[in-house]
Amino acid sequence: MNKLNNSDPVLLKNVKIEDNFWSEYQKLVKDVVIPYQWEALNDNISDADPSYAIRNFRIAAGEEQGDFGGMVFQDSDVAKWLEAVGYSLAINPDPVLEALADKTIDLIEKAQQPDGYLDTYFIIAAPEKRWTNLTECHELYCAGHMMEAAVAYYYGTGKRKLLDVMCRYADYIDTVFGTEPGKIKGYDGHQEVELALVKLYKATGNEKYLKLSKYFIDERGQEPYFFEQEWEKRGKISYWRPGIVPKPDESYHQAHKPVRKQSEAVGHAVREVYMCTGMADIAAETGDTELFEACRRLWDDIVNRQMYITGGIGSTNHGEAFSFDYDLPNDTVYAETCASIGLVFFAHRMLKIEAKGSYADAMERALYNTVVSGMAKDGRHFFYVNPLEVWPEASEKNPSRHHVKPVRQKWFGCACCPPNVARLLTSLGEYIYTSNENTVYTHLYIGSEAKVQLEDTDLQITQETDYPWKGNVKIKLSLEKEKEFKLALRIPGWCKKAEISVNDEAIDVSSKMADGYAIVLNKWQDGDCIELKLEMHVEFIQANPKVRADAGKVAIQRGPLVYCLEEVDNGSNLNSVSIDTSAGLEEEYDESLPGGAVAVRAKGIRIDEEGWSNKLYRPFEHKTKEVQLKAVPYYLWGNRTPGEMLVWIRHI
Amino acid sequence: MNKLNNSDPVLLKNVKIEDNFWSEYQKLVKDVVIPYQWEALNDNISDADPSYAIRNFRIAAGEEQGDFGGMVFQDSDVAKWLEAVGYSLAINPDPVLEALADKTIDLIEKAQQPDGYLDTYFIIAAPEKRWTNLTECHELYCAGHMMEAAVAYYYGTGKRKLLDVMCRYADYIDTVFGTEPGKIKGYDGHQEVELALVKLYKATGNEKYLKLSKYFIDERGQEPYFFEQEWEKRGKISYWRPGIVPKPDESYHQAHKPVRKQSEAVGHAVREVYMCTGMADIAAETGDTELFEACRRLWDDIVNRQMYITGGIGSTNHGEAFSFDYDLPNDTVYAETCASIGLVFFAHRMLKIEAKGSYADAMERALYNTVVSGMAKDGRHFFYVNPLEVWPEASEKNPSRHHVKPVRQKWFGCACCPPNVARLLTSLGEYIYTSNENTVYTHLYIGSEAKVQLEDTDLQITQETDYPWKGNVKIKLSLEKEKEFKLALRIPGWCKKAEISVNDEAIDVSSKMADGYAIVLNKWQDGDCIELKLEMHVEFIQANPKVRADAGKVAIQRGPLVYCLEEVDNGSNLNSVSIDTSAGLEEEYDESLPGGAVAVRAKGIRIDEEGWSNKLYRPFEHKTKEVQLKAVPYYLWGNRTPGEMLVWIRHI
Repeated sequence: MNKLNNSDPVLLKNVKIEDNFWSEYQKLVKDVVIPYQWEALNDNISDADPSYAIRNFRIAAGEEQGDFGGMVFQDSDVAKWLEAVGYSLAINPDPVLEALADKTIDLIEKAQQPDGYLDTYFIIAAPEKRWTNLTECHELYCAGHMMEAAVAYYYGTGKRKLLDVMCRYADYIDTVFGTEPGKIKGYDGHQEVELALVKLYKATGNEKYLKLSKYFIDERGQEPYFFEQEWEKRGKISYWRPGIVPKPDESYHQAHKPVRKQSEAVGHAVREVYMCTGMADIAAETGDTELFEACRRLWDDIVNRQMYITGGIGSTNHGEAFSFDYDLPNDTVYAETCASIGLVFFAHRMLKIEAKGSYADAMERALYNTVVSGMAKDGRHFFYVNPLEVWPEASEKNPSRHHVKPVRQKWFGCACCPPNVARLLTSLGEYIYTSNENTVYTHLYIGSEAKVQLEDTDLQITQETDYPWKGNVKIKLSLEKEKEFKLALRIPGWCKKAEISVNDEAIDVSSKMADGYAIVLNKWQDGDCIELKLEMHVEFIQANPKVRADAGKVAIQRGPLVYCLEEVDNGSNLNSVSIDTSAGLEEEYDESLPGGAVAVRAKGIRIDEEGWSNKLYRPFEHKTKEVQLKAVPYYLWGNRTPGEMLVWIRHI
Repeated sequence: MNKLNNSDPVLLKNVKIEDNFWSEYQKLVKDVVIPYQWEALNDNISDADPSYAIRNFRIAAGEEQGDFGGMVFQDSDVAKWLEAVGYSLAINPDPVLEALADKTIDLIEKAQQPDGYLDTYFIIAAPEKRWTNLTECHELYCAGHMMEAAVAYYYGTGKRKLLDVMCRYADYIDTVFGTEPGKIKGYDGHQEVELALVKLYKATGNEKYLKLSKYFIDERGQEPYFFEQEWEKRGKISYWRPGIVPKPDESYHQAHKPVRKQSEAVGHAVREVYMCTGMADIAAETGDTELFEACRRLWDDIVNRQMYITGGIGSTNHGEAFSFDYDLPNDTVYAETCASIGLVFFAHRMLKIEAKGSYADAMERALYNTVVSGMAKDGRHFFYVNPLEVWPEASEKNPSRHHVKPVRQKWFGCACCPPNVARLLTSLGEYIYTSNENTVYTHLYIGSEAKVQLEDTDLQITQETDYPWKGNVKIKLSLEKEKEFKLALRIPGWCKKAEISVNDEAIDVSSKMADGYAIVLNKWQDGDCIELKLEMHVEFIQANPKVRADAGKVAIQRGPLVYCLEEVDNGSNLNSVSIDTSAGLEEEYDESLPGGAVAVRAKGIRIDEEGWSNKLYRPFEHKTKEVQLKAVPYYLWGNRTPGEMLVWIRHI
C-alpha cells in the first residue's frame, strides 16, 4: 500500500495568520461567532427559537429530565462548535474558553452509553430505533462531526478526553457495520463519517478507523440498495413525514451506484463534496488509484460544469442539490455556504495528492466569494443560499425564490452554515501550505507566519501581502541552516503575468511552471526573500456558452474576487442595465465600503423606462440612456442597504 | 336594479364557423377529443390510469358496488364532457352522441340523492362529511361544472332533464348556504359555482340562483375567515395530507379580503379568473357598479402587469398561481391552459358590459396562442403548462422545471385542461359577436355565418377571412328589411392601420373609433358588404422594462400570433442566439409546418462555441457568427421534433 499523498498541511498551531483581509474574519469568529454560538446552543438567545443542543446532552447524561429538542442531527451543532473551539485554542489560547469546552466534553462523556453509543436523539427519544434509519437520521453524520471535533480539540489542546470518547464510539460503530455476518451492511445517509474516521486514524494511528471509512466508501451504492432495503424493513415510513413514503432517492445520497463508478456530481451538494473529501482521503492513505480517478472525474464535473463563478455549487433548492451540467440559474440557485466549504475541503485533499492549479483556483474562488459572503460583517448574520441575482420582491412573493434571501439571516433552527463558516475560518491556517520532505507548496496568499517541518530542518516562512487587493507577495524564509528544497508558488489561474524575484533577482517564471505552480528549486538560506508580483487587473469574464443562464452576459472579476452590482449603488432594476465591454473598467479603493475594498467603475446603458405608462408590451424601440455603474466585491453584498444584486450583467 | 349589460352573445346554435384556422380545431374536438374523452371517462384507454369518473356515478346510482376512484373532483370531468357535448350538438347534431349523453344524464339523475345532493365522492366515500371541507373538496366546484353542462345541454338539445337535476341541486344548495341562522356562512374553495349559477338563472329565469351566486361573491373574504373556521372545526386536518396541517392560505383562494376590495390578482390563477368571470356576471345582471370596478381593477392588474405575451397567466407552479406584478419568468412559468381559458371567459363577460379593445385583444391573444397551443394537432396530447422558454434537459433534471414539459402529454389523472380546451373550442361561435337592439359588435374575425336578432328584425352576418394569416375580412349582411344599426368592428391593438369600405366605398376609420372599435352607423340593406383591411405585418415586441425576465430581449409577433424559435429549425442552445433588430423580418408561408403557417425569417448572431474545451469561465472575448433564424407561430411549438423553444430572444 503506497500512499498517494504527496504533501501534508502544516499543523494549524504552527501557522499564525496576520492578514489585512482574513485577520478581521478570524477575530470575528473568535470574539463574536464562537461566544454567540455558545449562547445559542444553550438557548440563551432571547429572540431565536431554542437550539436544545446542550440540553439534549444534559438529558442524555441524566442531569436533567425532559424530551429531546431540535433536529435529529442537533448534536452536530455542539460538535461543530467544539471543533471551531479546538482550532481557535490552537491559534489563540484562551483558558476561559478552554474551561467551557472541557466542561462540555465532560458532559458529552457522561452522555455516552456503556457500549460507546453517543447520539442524544436516539438515547433520549428512541433507544430501540438505533441504526434503523440511516437514510434519514444522521447518526453517523453526528458521529463524524464529533470525531472531527475530538481531533481538532486534541491537536489544539493536547487533551485526549473527547478523542477517547470518540474512539470508543468508533470502536463500537466498527462492531455494528461491515460485510461480516451479523453486521449491518449499510452506510450513512449523509456522508461525513468517512472523512472524520480518516482524521481519527491519523490522530491515533489506529488502522481500524481507516478500514471502517474505506468500508463505508466501498459499500455505498452497491446493489441491492441498502437504503431501499432499510426503508422496506422499517415499513416504508419516514422520520420526517407521516404515512407511507416512496422509496428513497438513491442519487440524492450519491448511493445510486458504487462511488468509484461515479462521474457526475448529483444529489445533495454538501453530501457529494463531503463524500468526495472522504474518497480523496482514502485514496491518499491507501494508494487507491481507481478511487482517486473517481475523485478526479467528480472534481472535473463539479468545477468545470456545475460550479458558479462565485465557487457556489448546487443549482437547485429542491434537495439543496446539483442539477446537471451547465445548468447554473442565477436567480433560483441554491449554492449553499456549506457546500462551498465542502468544496474547499475536497480541493484541499486533492492538493495533498497532486498540486494542481485547478484545485487551488477553485478553493480560492469558493473562499473569497461564497464562503466569506456567507457571514455578515457583524458575525451574527449568515447566508445559507448564495444567489447571483437577487430581486427582493421576487424572494418574498415568488415561491420558487423564497429560499433566496436578500439579507443575511440570524442563526437558524437548522444551523449548519454558521458553525461551518466558523470552523473553516478558524482553521484557515491549514489551507495555506502543504509540504513534503523537499517541497513547500504555497496554495494561498495570506499574510502569515508558519513553521514548516522539512526533512532535517525547520523552516519559518513569513508571507506579507495586500492580497486580495494587490498581487504582491513577499515571502521571507528563516532557516537554521542552508537547505536545498523546492518552493512551489501557486500562480493563480486568473493571473496572466507573474514575476518572481529571489533576493531582488528576477527569475524566469515560465520555465518553472508545472500545473499552475512555479517550482523554484534553490539552496535556500536564512533571510532569503522571495517576491511575487501577480498582475492583478479587473476584467470581464464570460461563461461557457452552454450555460444558458449567462448567455450575453459578463461578470466582473479582479484577482480572486468576483464583483456584483448592488441596488444601493446602481438603482433598482439591475436587469435593465447593460455593461459596455468596450469602455473598460476602472478600479478605485473605496473606504466607505465595509472594511474598505476596491470598487470598480464601468460604463453602460439602461433601458429607458419612460413612456411605458400602464402597458406591458409594445413594438420594439431601442431607447436607452447612458449610465455609470459601480461594482463591489461579491463577498460584501448585502452589508449595506438591502436591495437587488446582480453578478452576471448583460453586455453590449 | 339596472343591468350593466350592454350587449349579449349570439346563441351558439345561431353561429356556424367555417374558417381556415378554427374549423380544423372544431373538427378535432368533435371527431377525436370528445370520443377519446368518453373512452377515458369509462376507463377504456389501455395505457392510461383509469379515470373512474363514470364508474363513480354508477356506484353512486347503486348500479355497481365499489369504492370511489380518482380525484375528489372527478365528477367535473363528466360535467365538462357533457358541456362540450352540449355545445357540439348545438352546432353539429349527432343522434348517436346525443343518445350517449342522454344515457349519462339518466345515470347522473339516478345518482342524485333525495334531497338533491349530487357529488359522487361524498355519496360513496364520506356521506357524513358533506360540506365539512369546502376549502379543499370541490363540492361546489363540481356542482358548478354540472350546472354549466346542464345549461349547455339544454341550449344544445332543448332537453331539460339535466337542467332539472341541477335546479334541484341548486335549490338544495340554497338551503345549505347563506347568512340566515342554521345555514353555513361559507363559500367554495375553488370558484366556479358563481358563474354557473348565473348561467342557471339565465336559462331558467329563477332569481334565487342569481341571489345565491351573489351571496357567494359577497361572503368571500369576509372576516372571520370561513376557511380558517372550517379548518379549526374539522380538527385542522386536511383531505390531501395526513396529520395536522397549517391553516389555509386565504389568498390562494382569493378569500383574503372581500372580493370587491381586491385589486391584485393573487393565488391560484384559474380560481382568480373563474371568480372574476362570476363577479362580472353578477355586476352585469345586478347593476353592481362597485363590483364592476373591482373587475376592472383585477382585469387591469392581470392584463397589464401579470400576463405573458402569449396570454398565459400564472407565474409560478407553486399553487399554479400568480406571483406579483411584472414577475414573468419564462422558464419556470406556469401559464396553465385552463387559466388562459378562464381569462377568455372573463374577457368575454367584460365585453358584454363594455366593448373595449383591451378585453378583446387579451381574449384574442390567449385564444390564438396559449389556448390553441394547449392541444396537439392530433387532439390526443395536451399542454397543461405553457412555457415561453424550454430546455428539455432542464425540464427533466432540474426540479424547478419539472412542471414544464417539452412535449404535450396524454390525458392526465387530473384532467382539467383537455376538456376545458374542448368546451371552449366547441363553443367558440359564442365569442365572435355580441349585440343589443341597435349595435352588433364583432370581437373576433373568424370565418362564419351568424343569425343575429336585432330589435325588430333578423340579421344574417357572414364573415370571410384569411385571419390570422391575413388581415382582410369581408362581412356580408342579409336583412329582411332595411335597418339602421351600428356595426362595431374591432380594430385589434396590434393593427397600426385599418381600412374599411362599405360596398367598395372607403370610410374614414379614425373618426369612427371608440375604445378599439370602429362604430359604423348606417341604414344597412340586404346584401351590403363591408370590407376590412387590417394591416398585418411581423414586428419585434418588447416588454415593459420592469419585466426583469425580458430585459434586452424581443419577441416576434404578427397579427394575433406570437412567434417562437424551435430547436428543429435553429439548432440547440437557443439562448446563445441574438436577433438583429435592425435587419428586419421576412415572412413566408410554409406548407411544411403542421397545417401550414406563415413562418418568419430573421438574421442574428450566435455566440461561438469553439475553443471552450473543458472550461466553464474565461476572460471575455466577443466572438460570434452570423446565423439565419426561423421563427414559427407559438401555437405550433412541440408539434415536430421535440427540443428547445424560445419566445423572448436576446437582441442586438
